[in-house]
Amino acid sequence: METLVTRYGIARVEGDELAIVDLPYPDLSALLNSGGTLDEVAKAAVTRRLPKSQLDDVAVAPLSLSTTAVWGVGLNYHGKAALTGRPVPTSPILFLKPSSALTTHRASLPIPAGLTEQFDYEAEVGIVLGRALVDADPEDVWDAVAGIIAANDTTARDVMKATGTPVLAKGFPGCAPFGPTVLPLADVEDPNAIPVASWVDGEQRQESSTADLIFDVPDLLARLSRYARLEPGDVVLTGTPPGTGQDRGDYLRPGQQVTIAVGGLTPLVNTIS
Amino acid sequence: METLVTRYGIARVEGDELAIVDLPYPDLSALLNSGGTLDEVAKAAVTRRLPKSQLDDVAVAPLSLSTTAVWGVGLNYHGKAALTGRPVPTSPILFLKPSSALTTHRASLPIPAGLTEQFDYEAEVGIVLGRALVDADPEDVWDAVAGIIAANDTTARDVMKATGTPVLAKGFPGCAPFGPTVLPLADVEDPNAIPVASWVDGEQRQESSTADLIFDVPDLLARLSRYARLEPGDVVLTGTPPGTGQDRGDYLRPGQQVTIAVGGLTPLVNTIS
Repeated sequence: METLVTRYGIARVEGDELAIVDLPYPDLSALLNSGGTLDEVAKAAVTRRLPKSQLDDVAVAPLSLSTTAVWGVGLNYHGKAALTGRPVPTSPILFLKPSSALTTHRASLPIPAGLTEQFDYEAEVGIVLGRALVDADPEDVWDAVAGIIAANDTTARDVMKATGTPVLAKGFPGCAPFGPTVLPLADVEDPNAIPVASWVDGEQRQESSTADLIFDVPDLLARLSRYARLEPGDVVLTGTPPGTGQDRGDYLRPGQQVTIAVGGLTPLVNTIS
Repeated sequence: METLVTRYGIARVEGDELAIVDLPYPDLSALLNSGGTLDEVAKAAVTRRLPKSQLDDVAVAPLSLSTTAVWGVGLNYHGKAALTGRPVPTSPILFLKPSSALTTHRASLPIPAGLTEQFDYEAEVGIVLGRALVDADPEDVWDAVAGIIAANDTTARDVMKATGTPVLAKGFPGCAPFGPTVLPLADVEDPNAIPVASWVDGEQRQESSTADLIFDVPDLLARLSRYARLEPGDVVLTGTPPGTGQDRGDYLRPGQQVTIAVGGLTPLVNTIS
């Protein structure tokens, strides 16, 4: 079941309820960093119950916004490569996002003033590490994964084109939101085909699954782990499928609402400002 | 005077002594993040004194290794551009280093096994932020700087060549050491000409100053602050002058000792393993 952090503590979603549990961690990052697993959230004693309809009011960031390393990857869906005519990369285009960019479900995302005319959404499946990963083989990657999270890897397309540097086009303050909940890997229906979709003001824009990845999750994380140590609680974003504003020539404007749905997770919703 | 963190608490260097002071922060990152300044370290009451000769035994990381965002910049010394024949960049080549790469004075730096035959040092001046910086003008940058720190931005040259991605060539676990102390900006003799030098096994390899920067400190930080929010305690590395192993065709080997001297700071010393 989905796990989250509320202002009352760590919680799990049980049907129409949020069950706040008795665990001594400020967030899921601290739990995972202490060697804990999301299974503990599923099993912990309940201290309080709230209707799930209150999620938007009580949910806070499930992962630490200051200590979570967030890795991203460029062009990683076959469908996107086919649509854009760009060649399929032979090694993943990896980058790291600044912590100051991280934000939450329902936060308003400010278009960087005066810097971009092409602010765009990217619906992505985020992989949350449960254990450290160093120089791993692909077949050992899933054992180190705690769960999945929804993410919007917003990108200023014109800044990307001008600088050629993902960290500059994707690291604006408070522009990288994560969904409110983490789904444990054991509850993911098919880890090799996790659905991902987006809507802008209710109109669907993206719909795909990680079955279309160029570098699939085990391959992507194994490759990354050759160069950098992934820590418990770190997140690896897996790329975005076709259907972004770039693909349509239609970018985000203030007042629009972007919704990202990933697997069985509570959707991530943000308003552009 | 130099400020540092010891296992007994925050300290300052007073002549031949380390003066441990009465400040309620685990490290300088926490002090700066709480709105404090390095001036508080200079003024705080002394609780204990140790001979400075014990620095290597008692010093711990002056900045938090888990929450410090460390930015780096590619080719940023005129001398390096001239030596290599590479064109002078028209905008800085910026990247972010993973926290898992950060380590300390006297730590041993492991050459990434099986991944590189060209592991190299880069002596750099690190600029430590004292206040947040967002979309700043160059003339406002120095006001937001707390001080300077010595850094070795080690790089696997062959990985850089193969991936074209600085974060992969410069983010290996425990390969990015910082010096043991931070020198407050007020004590930097000339902030526009900070000396930087390196030695390998006592033989000098690099000697320059930030007067030779292509993008000087105010320009570099102002440009970066247009794209990302810099937080108190964050560090911006400013590039390395000529004289690296790459420039000599002579890379680091296990057992060698690298020394980096920056401004009036206690030198950063690490052994390669």
